[in-house]
Amino acid sequence: MNLDYKSTADLLCKHDNFLILTHSHPDGDTLGSAFALARALRVLGKKAIVECSDRIPDSYAFMWEGMDIQEFEPEFILAVDIADSVLLGEDFEAAYSDKINLNIDHHASNKLKADYHLIEGDSAATAEMVYFIILELGVDVDPQIADCIFTGVSTDTGCFRYSNTTARTHKIAAALIEAGANSHEINQIFFETKTKVYAALERLALDGMRMYLDERLAVMVVTQEMYKESGATDSESDRISALPRQIEGVKAGATLRETKGGNFKVSLRTNGPVNAADLAAKFDGGGHAKAAGFRLEGPLENALDKLLKVLSKEL
Amino acid sequence: MNLDYKSTADLLCKHDNFLILTHSHPDGDTLGSAFALARALRVLGKKAIVECSDRIPDSYAFMWEGMDIQEFEPEFILAVDIADSVLLGEDFEAAYSDKINLNIDHHASNKLKADYHLIEGDSAATAEMVYFIILELGVDVDPQIADCIFTGVSTDTGCFRYSNTTARTHKIAAALIEAGANSHEINQIFFETKTKVYAALERLALDGMRMYLDERLAVMVVTQEMYKESGATDSESDRISALPRQIEGVKAGATLRETKGGNFKVSLRTNGPVNAADLAAKFDGGGHAKAAGFRLEGPLENALDKLLKVLSKEL
Repeated sequence: MNLDYKSTADLLCKHDNFLILTHSHPDGDTLGSAFALARALRVLGKKAIVECSDRIPDSYAFMWEGMDIQEFEPEFILAVDIADSVLLGEDFEAAYSDKINLNIDHHASNKLKADYHLIEGDSAATAEMVYFIILELGVDVDPQIADCIFTGVSTDTGCFRYSNTTARTHKIAAALIEAGANSHEINQIFFETKTKVYAALERLALDGMRMYLDERLAVMVVTQEMYKESGATDSESDRISALPRQIEGVKAGATLRETKGGNFKVSLRTNGPVNAADLAAKFDGGGHAKAAGFRLEGPLENALDKLLKVLSKEL
Repeated sequence: MNLDYKSTADLLCKHDNFLILTHSHPDGDTLGSAFALARALRVLGKKAIVECSDRIPDSYAFMWEGMDIQEFEPEFILAVDIADSVLLGEDFEAAYSDKINLNIDHHASNKLKADYHLIEGDSAATAEMVYFIILELGVDVDPQIADCIFTGVSTDTGCFRYSNTTARTHKIAAALIEAGANSHEINQIFFETKTKVYAALERLALDGMRMYLDERLAVMVVTQEMYKESGATDSESDRISALPRQIEGVKAGATLRETKGGNFKVSLRTNGPVNAADLAAKFDGGGHAKAAGFRLEGPLENALDKLLKVLSKEL
């Protein structure tokens, strides 16, 4: 059943003990949405916890600062920013994929099974939607909630620079800053700080950038060797995917990150009319119009062959 | 005499033939402010032209698209985003530094001589101030004016990521998008596109980044040799100055760009409590709290010596 903001808030008000699930390999939007909701539900006197199948990076620790540990039997399960059950992560998929009550997401392609759905494909971030749910709940956006939502909105829009950013996005950002969001610190953490190891990884990857299809396709590969040489880890390397698309004239930028098993996680970013989600679907992946993802089997030359074979028809 | 928005608009209404000056080595804020004002004054039936002592890069051509060439004797001279007469450029300084009627700027350190001043040091961009002047003039913000102002605001805030970005900045951005600003295209041009030659320059400069003062100071040098090797020009290299400050733990990031004469233009960006304008003042430069500039005499080792000598006391 599809809900709107008002009926979502009404539904949440009727329940008490919430488990809020984020996607695996968590990012600012899934975490910001989850912790903002958990905090708002707690303001209403309800119990709410956030769980993720993967370890949550320390850079997000401000989101749960000051939240008590609550132990209880979950009665109502929410999924936030999870487009597909496989994104729950292996263990969580087995445990929860048939038990989700409410599915809140901004991926139009969302395939999650749930009793209730609130999906808004033109929302820049799931956190934008959570902002309106919290307003409907009648909860004041305090500085902590504002920080969580601001992080989701800012990280999913590349700090307001990607084409998913709308006038609504800027209005929400203004309201969050007025509510006390530490916008400068958050932007500093997620956009203006590179660890030395990440900067080293970026240089290695940029040095090996390859151009294909008359320079319409830029491909960057991040190998396990590069992680070793730079000292960076996979979880630090998300933002590197933004780089290939930035080269002038490039229609699609693909970043292939080698897994420990020798396969590749591919992040695809596109420019202009090229639809990244449609391209990713040809590799059984998914995502948004300008940013999507999929997997390719190694070794590298096989992965590149398959990528070029499909993309040469599409670009 | 210091003005507010209302009295600035009243003053403009009393005059007819405007020359609007931008600073040399022009950026999105000085140009966006100038062309937005020129367009708004023309809507009111006045004559207005924009002049710059340097060639304006083609990436800003959308700002004057569709504007007629007007020839007339200027009666009233405005300076926008020009903190000091030296920034007019050599020829313009000789011609205009004693003739400026109205000085509109967001640099608190502004030293320009003028009959009237509208200075707002906590405005993220001069274009933010121009937005309010145009509202006071009673001119509707059309899509072209919105594009000019959006460019100024977005480029001077690093696309809403620098600490000068306020709730007001986001509200203006929302209003400009609603007025028809091509925010996606503008962000794409100024933040999401690197020419191949710029990308090559960036790699060369990053490869040579040096750390000093227990890694509190990061220094990047862009030599004439690097311009040659990459094919990039000085006017394309402005954004490179953002990179040294991004390294974790760095308090100040300095980018030294070699001039054809073998001297160095230094862009200084700082983190946390370190005030860039105060540091730049020690080298007879100026700017903002987090971003400032000054010049150092070559050769490189001399410039680095002087830089380290002063900064080692300050950082």
